[in-house]
Amino acid sequence: MKDFTWLNPTTLDFGKNKEKKIGEHLAKQGSQHILLCYGSDRIKRDGLFSSVISSLEKNGITFVECGGIVSNPTLGKVREGIALARQNNVDAVLSVGGGSVLDSAKAIAAGVRYQGDVWDLFMGSGSIDSALPVFDILTLAATGSEMNSGAVVTNEETNQKYAINSVHLFPVVSVVNPDLMKTITRDYLVYSAADIIAHSIEGYFTASHQPHFQSRMVEAIIKTVMESTEKLLVDPSDYNARAEFAWASTQALNGLIYSGTEGYSYPNHMIEHALSALFNVPHGAGLSVVMPAWMKWYQSRNSEQFARFAREIFGLDTAEQGIAALENWFNKIGTPTRLPQLGINNISAELIDNILGNADWFGIKDIYTRDVVADIINKAK
Amino acid sequence: MKDFTWLNPTTLDFGKNKEKKIGEHLAKQGSQHILLCYGSDRIKRDGLFSSVISSLEKNGITFVECGGIVSNPTLGKVREGIALARQNNVDAVLSVGGGSVLDSAKAIAAGVRYQGDVWDLFMGSGSIDSALPVFDILTLAATGSEMNSGAVVTNEETNQKYAINSVHLFPVVSVVNPDLMKTITRDYLVYSAADIIAHSIEGYFTASHQPHFQSRMVEAIIKTVMESTEKLLVDPSDYNARAEFAWASTQALNGLIYSGTEGYSYPNHMIEHALSALFNVPHGAGLSVVMPAWMKWYQSRNSEQFARFAREIFGLDTAEQGIAALENWFNKIGTPTRLPQLGINNISAELIDNILGNADWFGIKDIYTRDVVADIINKAK
Repeated sequence: MKDFTWLNPTTLDFGKNKEKKIGEHLAKQGSQHILLCYGSDRIKRDGLFSSVISSLEKNGITFVECGGIVSNPTLGKVREGIALARQNNVDAVLSVGGGSVLDSAKAIAAGVRYQGDVWDLFMGSGSIDSALPVFDILTLAATGSEMNSGAVVTNEETNQKYAINSVHLFPVVSVVNPDLMKTITRDYLVYSAADIIAHSIEGYFTASHQPHFQSRMVEAIIKTVMESTEKLLVDPSDYNARAEFAWASTQALNGLIYSGTEGYSYPNHMIEHALSALFNVPHGAGLSVVMPAWMKWYQSRNSEQFARFAREIFGLDTAEQGIAALENWFNKIGTPTRLPQLGINNISAELIDNILGNADWFGIKDIYTRDVVADIINKAK
Repeated sequence: MKDFTWLNPTTLDFGKNKEKKIGEHLAKQGSQHILLCYGSDRIKRDGLFSSVISSLEKNGITFVECGGIVSNPTLGKVREGIALARQNNVDAVLSVGGGSVLDSAKAIAAGVRYQGDVWDLFMGSGSIDSALPVFDILTLAATGSEMNSGAVVTNEETNQKYAINSVHLFPVVSVVNPDLMKTITRDYLVYSAADIIAHSIEGYFTASHQPHFQSRMVEAIIKTVMESTEKLLVDPSDYNARAEFAWASTQALNGLIYSGTEGYSYPNHMIEHALSALFNVPHGAGLSVVMPAWMKWYQSRNSEQFARFAREIFGLDTAEQGIAALENWFNKIGTPTRLPQLGINNISAELIDNILGNADWFGIKDIYTRDVVADIINKAK
């Protein structure tokens, strides 16, 4: 097992009505004036916004709004948020939304304390030495951002979808109330399932050494996500299924399943980030297209683990059967598995170049050469 | 799923030679003069002690020794440690040892800051409002104390083995180096396996609502512990097996597998604590005797989960087969399954009374009446 240091300081407040305590959490940390980040005005219509405001007011906390954050959140919006935070001298950032809002909030929190342009932090030419404290109320479970130190943002000028990571970016408190997730669309539910599965399998398949315990945890997450997705497609109001889905989502990317894992990489994310950056496809939808293709290309390199996956997840015998079963399951729940379903009918040089740029950023360009990337992406046609 | 708040602030520094960084960890937190708790002089002979001292010295940290802490650690020794800590005005407590040393260190850390007698904290007549920061180097993986907020101590005057729990008792930094565990005896390895399995099954079987994800995590832990125990019995120097064992042990009682679990209790610990308090049996050895007996008594109350246990852990069909398989496995690895193996040939009224006292303390005396307790304990004859 690889040496590791586990530290995850986030308080996760999980359950019904927990969003009503957000003002209390902020006040406890000394916050008085915050930047309130959110996406569409939907949260104003469905009562969540007024519930949050009421909790802030009760605790004497004032706020500046930063709304309109979109999926595949943009650098432009992050820069806008940083300017707003500076002008108003806020002392914390609160995200009310899914992973896109939260990742924007994290980028803003880091950017406010950084003297140069925030994109430096994504390119590695600047470092995150501190950040405003981040709090969040999660309305979509998928990215795991609520209990980790990372954030992904798209630079819409350069079409780069890159990440930052810093111990300063763990949310102080994350509220996860499964009830807030019951109105998400069927599409976003199944995209989220694909996202969580992608987070789980990257290390599982690519590690040079994967502890058996970590494999078992990954399998626990995948089985739970598949089971709860199927339940939610039948009954979106199934609280326990929604809760299991959300809790498994958090565990998939909070560091737990990667602890002790050696020599792993994120090739599926590497490829998908190019699809999101260039075609603005939903991240999870991109991933459910990439995963079967990548698995078909990669499986002979770790055939034992692929056979294990087939056996443990689907009760099947061979690596090929396991991959086909996953692709079938994606088809069954209705998340795309082929590029044309994303509206991508031609594999352009720009797409391959973008993926190669990501391969460089992820530190795996030696494996993912132009030919290899073309081979994988062609399997997704 | 039950509402819960997850917060675990412990930094777990896991891997080879990590004990050499302990001085650095302490200095980073501002410690200058510490109480150094340990058990027997074995750590002085095997080089660990000098390695720790060297790290402390390098970081300008002085220390006062509190050695001689025994398994089933005693209140008397805790009181002695508190006096020593006060006389020497230490600013932190460092445990070098297994769960007994660490639990004593935690009790000392809480007791130093409490005006009355430390036993009040165990009886609930005093509260833990603060504690000295606790650090530890773990030399035996079993209790999970390295990443939780609890501590168990025996009052040798009253024969009560009780616990304290407080957010102030999470270790600041726990060092887990599997290499330090390779010299533990065969007996303590198998007792530890039983202890970890006991931590895992209490909620799994007794919960009124157990999320499927939590069940899967429990099964991941049990399978890993069984697999790595068997490997270690063949080759005690198998680093990866030792590491998986230790990491699974930490996860079994750091709060993870109990998050979202509703209405559970600790009946096996309730019974075992009486065996340890009265007969000073090793905790894990007591648990491997108690578990099969308790399971036989309890199984009809949650037959579905017992059938699941049989299926998932042993690939068997019925609850009864699963319980028998666990008992057989305990016999195979060489941890006791019957009271006479612990030297207990008569079931005295004192034993039953002690268990009933624990039932009261654990808040489950309505279920565990005199007749029930006698019934269970008779199944362990």
